Order: sequence, then structure tokens, then C-alpha cells
Amino acid sequence: MQRKQHLFIPGPTPVPPDVTAAMTRPVIGHRSSEFASLQRSLVAQVQKVFQTKNDLFILTSSGTGAMEAAVAATVEPGDRVLALVTGHFGNRFADIAERWGAKVERLEFTWGEPVDLAAVKAALDRGPLPKAVLATHNETSTGVVNDIAGLGALLKDTPTLLMVDAVSSMGAMDIRTDEWGVDFMITSSQKALMLPPGLAFLSVSPKAWKVIEAHKPRSYYFDLLAWRRSAEKGFSPWTPNVALLYGLEAALARLFAEGLPQVWERHRRFARLVRAGLRGMGCELLAQDAWASATVTAARTPGVDVEEVRALARREYGLSLAGGKGKLAGQILRLSHMGYVDELELLGALAVLELVLRRLGAPVAPGAGVARAEEEIFTGGGALG
Amino acid sequence: MQRKQHLFIPGPTPVPPDVTAAMTRPVIGHRSSEFASLQRSLVAQVQKVFQTKNDLFILTSSGTGAMEAAVAATVEPGDRVLALVTGHFGNRFADIAERWGAKVERLEFTWGEPVDLAAVKAALDRGPLPKAVLATHNETSTGVVNDIAGLGALLKDTPTLLMVDAVSSMGAMDIRTDEWGVDFMITSSQKALMLPPGLAFLSVSPKAWKVIEAHKPRSYYFDLLAWRRSAEKGFSPWTPNVALLYGLEAALARLFAEGLPQVWERHRRFARLVRAGLRGMGCELLAQDAWASATVTAARTPGVDVEEVRALARREYGLSLAGGKGKLAGQILRLSHMGYVDELELLGALAVLELVLRRLGAPVAPGAGVARAEEEIFTGGGALG
Repeated sequence: MQRKQHLFIPGPTPVPPDVTAAMTRPVIGHRSSEFASLQRSLVAQVQKVFQTKNDLFILTSSGTGAMEAAVAATVEPGDRVLALVTGHFGNRFADIAERWGAKVERLEFTWGEPVDLAAVKAALDRGPLPKAVLATHNETSTGVVNDIAGLGALLKDTPTLLMVDAVSSMGAMDIRTDEWGVDFMITSSQKALMLPPGLAFLSVSPKAWKVIEAHKPRSYYFDLLAWRRSAEKGFSPWTPNVALLYGLEAALARLFAEGLPQVWERHRRFARLVRAGLRGMGCELLAQDAWASATVTAARTPGVDVEEVRALARREYGLSLAGGKGKLAGQILRLSHMGYVDELELLGALAVLELVLRRLGAPVAPGAGVARAEEEIFTGGGALG
Repeated sequence: MQRKQHLFIPGPTPVPPDVTAAMTRPVIGHRSSEFASLQRSLVAQVQKVFQTKNDLFILTSSGTGAMEAAVAATVEPGDRVLALVTGHFGNRFADIAERWGAKVERLEFTWGEPVDLAAVKAALDRGPLPKAVLATHNETSTGVVNDIAGLGALLKDTPTLLMVDAVSSMGAMDIRTDEWGVDFMITSSQKALMLPPGLAFLSVSPKAWKVIEAHKPRSYYFDLLAWRRSAEKGFSPWTPNVALLYGLEAALARLFAEGLPQVWERHRRFARLVRAGLRGMGCELLAQDAWASATVTAARTPGVDVEEVRALARREYGLSLAGGKGKLAGQILRLSHMGYVDELELLGALAVLELVLRRLGAPVAPGAGVARAEEEIFTGGGALG
């Protein structure tokens, strides 16, 4: 058989068929009143997902583009930037700031653990205050959630801007952009928003606008002043990805039909299911329950080469799992449980994974992981995330 | 979440995305040379699936329409017809013959068991010979395979026509239309051919044509002489379902890319997986291994109401299972493992089923069925079907 591709990587995630169908609607001109009313409606809905009243832009780019937009709009060469690194994507954010000339201090934490607020406070207290703090809400490379509320509280009465990468959590977790004091909140389309890749989302606080307005634009594509001017007319300054906007409309309809709190709870539930299953088959989870992600779980496999596990799972059973990134390459696998996925598929993925482990010689009893995952569903366990 | 619909009913089965995409191609006129070359190519390919050199028609109807076409083209009021009934769909075939005026003798066998050739021989020996024998290759309502080769041998040197319903097996099992001496072989689109419903397929032997030619057409839509005249020009006499023909082209490409023997073997393998899993969770299988279908498995659930099982599975986990039909209504559930389905999904469906059984109070240990199914994959067990 031409294998089905079962995407359990943390993005791109499976796309619902109604979203795919919506994307086939005829493309309209992006300087039309129809487009303006579509974009205005979508922005208002995404603001609800972000829990923000700030300006919000839908960029035709990946999430990395939105990270660059935030940096390029605010950072001058030589500016101090404090990058909180809990994994691969924290490092990427720091790399972007360096590319734009910032003097970046990387505060690195053990991969698999969250940001330690006391260490951040100590770094801030050493001064001088950085222009920006770069943080990752949900570190996709380790499956760890960071305390953005705590960071926001530290920066509340300072001029420092808080830039947050929520690429792999927005839409799946309770993220309070305004309450937490986030100046730039960033996500992209191919994660919990259930779309193909191609869109990024960026919110900009009034505090951030003051810095941007005092700054000479350096990027052309990501010139946020140009984006703001166009948005006033309902447009984007450059050609937008109209088909993905149609898809976004359908995906948001799904999220609001279910209800955001219900969506968040579902993701916590699925994370517990996966964690129980992985433990049941002898995997060691990278992140402790206290800071575990609701969307992606990283684990070490018991006594077998993780790359062999991934290759066999994909080749023989169409199961795509992610591997480790950066310093965790070859050491962990990562299983996504975000977006358009359900119990049947998660249980199926766990069953295939334990079968693959066994085929590679791991001491896994058939059904051991699935049994624990079923037990977790049956008993409806405790809180997570 | 708006639940995913996981179709494990024995038709319609899941449609591969490339098949769905093919169906969106612009519709062409059905009296064009493009259409003729499409239909000719498709007929030649479906003949390979049928293992026949006989004429083959692609009808815009369900499988029931093709059954009616065979009967209406050959049976005169008062003709004797012997209907071999091993389940619900055997009865339907008999009903059709009665509607067209045949004097139908129903030879009924225990549901869950196959046709007993000795009983058929005895009925034929009692004479006079029937105009036609109606048989079901794969009885969808019980998951039983009948010995069509054996039936063909009994009728080989007689004027009796052999009409076979292979709706739920064609494309998934090794069906030798010509070698077995089948005069009318019938299937439809929404089963192992991985298409949405809407097409039926009917092959007609030279022996059958002699009867048809001597018969005054009674149906208009299903007038096979009209179908043959149109087919000579590459057309169908009435408007064909062009989009489904595009889909058929894509589905056949999948079957031939994998190889028909490999497709048949895959179905046997999945049947063993499902049977092991159901037994592992304490279900009693309706059909013995010796005559078990490679595409659908029927089972009694251990001490819980099967309709409650189906309702809970569908409502809470999006898992669609079929129930019993006719005299087995409320007594069994039926799980399809045909077409576009894979190990991950079958293991997931078994996990959900055992979870549902447990939620309804059945004495099922978590993971018990999945463990047996994994074991079956791991050890790669014996032959089936």
C-alpha cells in the first residue's frame, strides 16, 4: 500500500477535511472589500485565541518570519537582548536577534526543564536592562512549558519588551497575551491551528508600538508600520496567502464551535494519555508533569536507538515521529498530540510505537503502553498544564 | 471537537486523498473521445481486478443495481432460480429475483457458516435445473467467504447461469471470475475499491450473453444489450458518473502500484490482526478461521449490549462499527478491515473498542485485545482466506 502518512510530528499537524475544502474556494483579489472584511473578521477571531486586544497581524510567512518581524522592528545594533533558552527554538530566537546586531545574552537552562525565574531576575538585576527578553512559551524541542506570566510580572514596570514564541501552543493552551504583559506574541498556522504551513500571527502591544515608532524600519517585508497602515484598510502590505486565510476561517470555526476552554482541556487530556502510554512501554519522559507541554511529549526510548525507532515506524507503519533537535539529536523522540487528532489515533500510534520498540529488541510487553493509556482515559486522571 | 469519523463499517470505506482530489477534475462530456478512452482504459483495468476477459460494464448505480441488471436481463417470470443464502445480502439477491417474477428456491445455511456444496448439489440433482444460481462471494453480514470455484464446477456443464455478488470482496481478495466460471460477477465502488458509493461493476460471460440475446429486455436502465452497444463506442448508454470514474482511475493506480497479490495478502494479514484482537478482548467470532472473510469480521461482544457498544464508540470516539443485519440484528458487531486502512488505525480501533467494552462493564483487561493484535503482527501468523 502507498502508506498513509500519520503525522505525529509537532507540526505540520493533520488538516481537517473541511479546512482543506475551504482552501479550494476561488481566490479573490486582495485589494477588494471582500478581502478586507475577511481579514478583519479573522483578525478579531485570532485576537480571541490570543486573548489580546492588541493589534494583530496575519503574516504570509512561517513563525520564524514573525520572530524576525518583532526583532527587526525594535532592536538596534548593539542593543542588549536577553534570550531565555530552554531548547532548540529558544536558540533560534537568539540567533535572529544576533543577526540583527543585538548583543545577545543567552540564559540557558537544562533542556527538559523550564526557565528558572530566579535566574532571570538575577540577570535583570545585574543590569543594564535589556531592550528585549526573548522567551518560548512551549519549547517544541523538549515538550516544556515556560511561565510567561511570571516573566511578564518581572518586566511589567520596565521598558524591556517581552517577545514570546507560542508557535506550538497557541490555540491548544490557555495563553493570556494581555494579562501576562506580552509585547510580541507569535504563532504560526501549522500547529494547533490545524492549517498547512504558510501563515504566521503576531500581536503587538502599545508599549511595543512606542519602540517601533521611534525606530527606523530595517526590514522591508516585515516593516510593522507598513503592516499597520495596510491593516487600517483591512489589507496586508504585500500579497497575502488567500487560500490559507479561507482555511483559517474554517479552522477557527472548529475551535469556537468546540469552545476554547474545551479545546485546552482536550489537549491536557491527550497529553496525559500519551504520557501514561509512553511510561507504560518503559520510555523515560524528558519533562516532568509539573511543566509538561499539552501539545508535544519528548521521551527517551528504553535501550534502542531512537533513530531506528523513527525509521521503522515511518517505513513500516506510516507513523511519523519527530526526533531530538540540537543537543538532544539522536537521544529522544517527540510525539505531537495537538490539533486535529483523537483518541483512536493516539492509541493507534502508541500501539505501533510499542510494536516497533519490541521489533527492535526493547523489553516491551505487547499492549503495555496502550493498556496504561486506556487506563488513563478510563479513570480520567488529574490536571496537567 | 467535531469528531473525526473513523469508518470501520464494511462500506463505505475511507477514500484516499488522491482519489478525492482526482474527483475534483473538471467534468468532461460523456460523448467525447476523451471519455471513450477513459472508459476503455478503466474497463481493461477492472477486468484485471476481476480476472476476466468477459465484457465488463461500469454502471452508475449501487451494487444492488448490478444485481438487478443480471437478473432482469435473463430471468423470465416463472423461471426457477436457486438462491444460496448465507446472510442478509444473499436474501437481497433472492428478493430481486422474486421481484422479476422468478420462482426462487432459497437454500439457506446457518448464518456465520458458508454454503454447503453437497446441499447445493443435492438441490441441483433434484432438478429441474434452475435458470440461475445466485451466490454471495463474501457475505458482508456475517464475514463469511463462500466457495465460488466449487459452485462453478457444479454448474460448468449445465445451462444454469452463475451470478455472484462480490460487492465486499472484489479488489481485496483473489477472485477468479473466468477460472471459476462466473457468468455475472458484481461489485461496487465503496468497498475495497476505496471510492465513494455510486458505481457498480458487472462482468458478463459469453454463456450469459446467449441467454440475454434470447430474452426480451425488461428493464430500460439496465438493458445490457444497450450497454453493450454503447460500450462498443466507449460510452455508456445513459449519463455516467464522470467524477467517480476519475476517482476510479486514481484508486486503480494505487491497487496496481502495490500489486494485486500484495493487496490480497495485506487484507488477509489485517483480518488476522483484527481476529486476534477481538479474541483477545473476549469477543466470540461468528465465522471460523477456515471460512473467514479477509475484509469484514463479525463478533459477539462479551456480556454487553452490542448496540450500546456501537453507540458509545461512535459518540465518544468517532469509531463507526456496523451492527448485525436481519436475524443477527442486535447480536453482533462487524468491523471492516478493507481498503484504505492500516495497522495504526486498526490497532487504534481495537483499543477504542476494548475501552468501550470496559466502560460498559465487560470484563476486559486494558490492552488485552491490542496486545494479541500486536502479537499477531509481530509473529506474522498463518494463512487466512
